[in-house]
Amino acid sequence: MTDANPHDLALKVLQRCDRLAKLTEDPGRITRPFLCATAAFVHELVREWMQAAGMSVRVDALGNIIGHLPGANAGAPVFLIGSHLDTVPDAGRYDGILGVLLGIAAVAGLKGTRLPFAVEVIGFSEEEGVRYRTSYLGSKAVCGSFDLSWLAKSDAAGVTMGDALRRFGLDPHNIPAAAYPHGRVLGYLETHIEQGPVLESLDRPLGVVQAIVGQSRLWLTFEGAAGHAGTQPMAMRRDALVAAAQFIVAVEQRAQSTEGLRATVGVVSSAPGAVNVVPGLARVSLDVRHATDAIREAAVDSLLADAHQIGKARDIRVGVERAEQHPAVPMNPRLTALLADAAETLGHRPLHMASGAGHDAAVMASITQVAMLFVRSPGGISHHPGEAVLPLDIEAALGVMIAFLHRLAKESTHESFRINP
Amino acid sequence: MTDANPHDLALKVLQRCDRLAKLTEDPGRITRPFLCATAAFVHELVREWMQAAGMSVRVDALGNIIGHLPGANAGAPVFLIGSHLDTVPDAGRYDGILGVLLGIAAVAGLKGTRLPFAVEVIGFSEEEGVRYRTSYLGSKAVCGSFDLSWLAKSDAAGVTMGDALRRFGLDPHNIPAAAYPHGRVLGYLETHIEQGPVLESLDRPLGVVQAIVGQSRLWLTFEGAAGHAGTQPMAMRRDALVAAAQFIVAVEQRAQSTEGLRATVGVVSSAPGAVNVVPGLARVSLDVRHATDAIREAAVDSLLADAHQIGKARDIRVGVERAEQHPAVPMNPRLTALLADAAETLGHRPLHMASGAGHDAAVMASITQVAMLFVRSPGGISHHPGEAVLPLDIEAALGVMIAFLHRLAKESTHESFRINP
Repeated sequence: MTDANPHDLALKVLQRCDRLAKLTEDPGRITRPFLCATAAFVHELVREWMQAAGMSVRVDALGNIIGHLPGANAGAPVFLIGSHLDTVPDAGRYDGILGVLLGIAAVAGLKGTRLPFAVEVIGFSEEEGVRYRTSYLGSKAVCGSFDLSWLAKSDAAGVTMGDALRRFGLDPHNIPAAAYPHGRVLGYLETHIEQGPVLESLDRPLGVVQAIVGQSRLWLTFEGAAGHAGTQPMAMRRDALVAAAQFIVAVEQRAQSTEGLRATVGVVSSAPGAVNVVPGLARVSLDVRHATDAIREAAVDSLLADAHQIGKARDIRVGVERAEQHPAVPMNPRLTALLADAAETLGHRPLHMASGAGHDAAVMASITQVAMLFVRSPGGISHHPGEAVLPLDIEAALGVMIAFLHRLAKESTHESFRINP
Repeated sequence: MTDANPHDLALKVLQRCDRLAKLTEDPGRITRPFLCATAAFVHELVREWMQAAGMSVRVDALGNIIGHLPGANAGAPVFLIGSHLDTVPDAGRYDGILGVLLGIAAVAGLKGTRLPFAVEVIGFSEEEGVRYRTSYLGSKAVCGSFDLSWLAKSDAAGVTMGDALRRFGLDPHNIPAAAYPHGRVLGYLETHIEQGPVLESLDRPLGVVQAIVGQSRLWLTFEGAAGHAGTQPMAMRRDALVAAAQFIVAVEQRAQSTEGLRATVGVVSSAPGAVNVVPGLARVSLDVRHATDAIREAAVDSLLADAHQIGKARDIRVGVERAEQHPAVPMNPRLTALLADAAETLGHRPLHMASGAGHDAAVMASITQVAMLFVRSPGGISHHPGEAVLPLDIEAALGVMIAFLHRLAKESTHESFRINP
């Protein structure tokens, strides 16, 4: 390995991101859903790069590709570094992919040093939830929480997940064996683009994640009475959309007044939905996130109280459907401190921040202690061809990951690190 | 004619409305678009009823059915009474139909009396604009403003209007001949359900229309920046939907503060339209109506100023598309006074009111003086199977129409009434 210094390795990571971006189901755009034909070509390249970094390579029954660098001793625990290789339609070239390729580069950056633990770099086959409307399939298989009934789910073309796996040369019967044995995993590190504008706005290259925010997703319906836009006087209306609009404004106001809270209405519709009809029904989505569950739950309660108050004042019936609720996932404080120390020592002043998006790390936290490193996203762009990174930031991230592994190696001689929380 | 008293004639009108309601393209619902197969059965019945009332019947080249009661003298002008026989999908049984059947009953109620003018009752073949997304086809043909290029329009099944006419047994070449010769028409009276709650709320059976409101239809787009609902802090958002929501609330506020103004946002959408994405784009419709054009135009200007102010405060670009604009159509003051006098004399205390909806009368006003009589709509229901009328109100309307014709006969000896305005 003649070019195992962080600068050259970082350039190689970027070249490899560019190379994988060419592997797509949709020429001209980056679209690489779970188990698509081009995912096999991705595996070929990733396998080659993992082997070049000194790893042996396997693909598990869900299509996760895993490179293994042995530890100093047989039977040593495994430290995992990973992220995902699938993409949304018309994606950028870094979301997920960057974390896998930085993991491979970090192993290369160890220059053959054997650590007191094995290092495995894992490229999850599925995270985005596009093909089967179910997210984190890869990390769930690794964590033993893959539900075999999902194999019967069909994609838009009617292909079941079971058939898609078989067509990819995999045997769904072996999915349970993809789970890591209890106690085998020492920890998990995921590096990911921030997908937001915070690091850029504060002129920081790197963020150390404290927690992945908890999330509540709800649907609210406002039910009034439809009427003719010409014949119904204003004073006699029960316009459902005006009520919903008042609510949308209230959501923003409440979120702005609570530190760290993010509340969003992304979807709105009115019925009957005609230019000349007063809407009798309006429906909005509500997405509320915060790193502290109690604050998020209190915000949801307040927003629902707002909705009911708006409805009461207008004789509009408010219906609430709680679609999803995920608690916040705290990162492991000691791994996170190691990561932050590594960054500080290298002079990168990392920002301690919440992750507003979900990541495989949230699933991995169910079996091991996890940490996440964020890389500045110029423009804050996510899930879009405009996703970008700065080469110096990639070099910084890689340096921090390598330093982190060396620090972890030192610390892991302490018994405390071998026990999962 | 043994039952030519208003009470029996009114009952017959209601029975006939029920009978026509059974003629539908969609069993179980009333759906009778322009030139549908069942429109031919409607013509059979209407022809029979017109003939029973003493009229000769013709169908013009656009499928309007017209009953003719001769005047006292050959060459006498024609007074038209009409409305439309087509319906929206899943319609009520009175919108349009009632005005035609009341016209026939009013002629029957003349009990053979010859007036100094001919009376023609016209059942327009098209008013709702459903099949070819173009409204008032029937009255436009009668007024000579039917655009022959419309014959090339296709319906949802790909049938052109020209073919639809031919399949109905009509010859599109004759459409120009459907226009009444200049100066032949003395006036036009349309009776229609109110389609709104005003008469009911004031406990009045009948309304005399002063004007059909003018109308502005616009589309506004709010363009901000899409972002991730989790990763984008509230303070850094340019949420297009919150801007649109503020505008929707402002529309209601401004309309409530202007007497007689009706302003409605009936359609709203956000893009990309995902639960977890801050909307970068929002689009709303705007429908503004008032009986006075200057007030409507000032309201539109104020609302657009509101939108631009909201956009400016949020760094959101506001785009405006003016889709349609129709001036208010005043009813003829003398015909309206005759109608009101007839109602007063019969003890019905008619309400002088604007029509918030458009009607064939607005088109007919391009060739003659027009008047409209409104019948109370219990529940204010329109374009819905729940449309209703009260039998006593129908009897009242019929009595007023007959009395109106007699008064008009007296007045029309004055030369002034023979000249179109």
